[in-house]
Amino acid sequence: MSTIETKIENFTIRFAKEEDTKLILWFIRELAEYEKRLDDVVATEELLHEWLFVHHKAEVIIGEFNGEPVGFALFFHNFSTFLGRAGIYLEDLYVKPEYRGRGMGKTMLLYLTKIAVDRGCGRVDWSCLDWNTPAIDFYISLGAEDLSEWTGYRVSGDTLEELAKEFS
Amino acid sequence: MSTIETKIENFTIRFAKEEDTKLILWFIRELAEYEKRLDDVVATEELLHEWLFVHHKAEVIIGEFNGEPVGFALFFHNFSTFLGRAGIYLEDLYVKPEYRGRGMGKTMLLYLTKIAVDRGCGRVDWSCLDWNTPAIDFYISLGAEDLSEWTGYRVSGDTLEELAKEFS
Repeated sequence: MSTIETKIENFTIRFAKEEDTKLILWFIRELAEYEKRLDDVVATEELLHEWLFVHHKAEVIIGEFNGEPVGFALFFHNFSTFLGRAGIYLEDLYVKPEYRGRGMGKTMLLYLTKIAVDRGCGRVDWSCLDWNTPAIDFYISLGAEDLSEWTGYRVSGDTLEELAKEFS
Repeated sequence: MSTIETKIENFTIRFAKEEDTKLILWFIRELAEYEKRLDDVVATEELLHEWLFVHHKAEVIIGEFNGEPVGFALFFHNFSTFLGRAGIYLEDLYVKPEYRGRGMGKTMLLYLTKIAVDRGCGRVDWSCLDWNTPAIDFYISLGAEDLSEWTGYRVSGDTLEELAKEFS
């Protein structure tokens, strides 16, 4: 997979390969620490390898400065029934603290909008923790729509196992 | 694809096939009307056919009462970086008004939890409009976690096209 030049000098983007699994896990843990949720990370290299590079359930791009990985974005295809087509959902976007403020995160997000348009997708969605004001201000400045009339719900762990038993 | 029996008499579930495209669009439009957003539906049979049955970007189950379609659920795989594996995201769940209150919607949701467990997925997620109190009460009664500390953001339409030009 080729390296994509960006408008930021020496900052390039490329799709992650199998050999990047350890790096991806490192980024995931860094982001979790920033979100004060490191204890919730149970991902391992083995799991990530299986679900990303065997089952292909998500894609990852790596941002590099002078060839050194400094950030990543993980995304997958969601689906809009109203548009009748897939979209892109950005699950994680992370840039190392010492490289922030130079537009690298923005550039990775913009690259995802290009992927969306190239693939005929109707939109790019993501979520943000409500205390992360700098990120929210940035998203609004891009022209993003605020979907705060929607609340997410989730079943996982024991609750998921319990509910699934209805069909056992 | 076989028909799945449920604990509700005469109510069965099956995976949608290509021939169900028109029916799926009908359900999508019915749900949009309930959400007071029918004007936002631009999906067509052709688009749905392409993205569901050619690109396979989402899956649909149909609920039938006495062999008659009475509801549907559309879902796709999302991805949890913290769990290091895919999950299931329920995009739409709809039961015709005259069949509500008999547990058919709940049964379809429970069937998705079984699919999640069978496929090794870590969770089932969905979203709900904040004014839809009956649905919210139902989700909480199932043991679902409320993710209201997260807000969704979206770029679409002209904004998406504009942002993508950074890489043109």
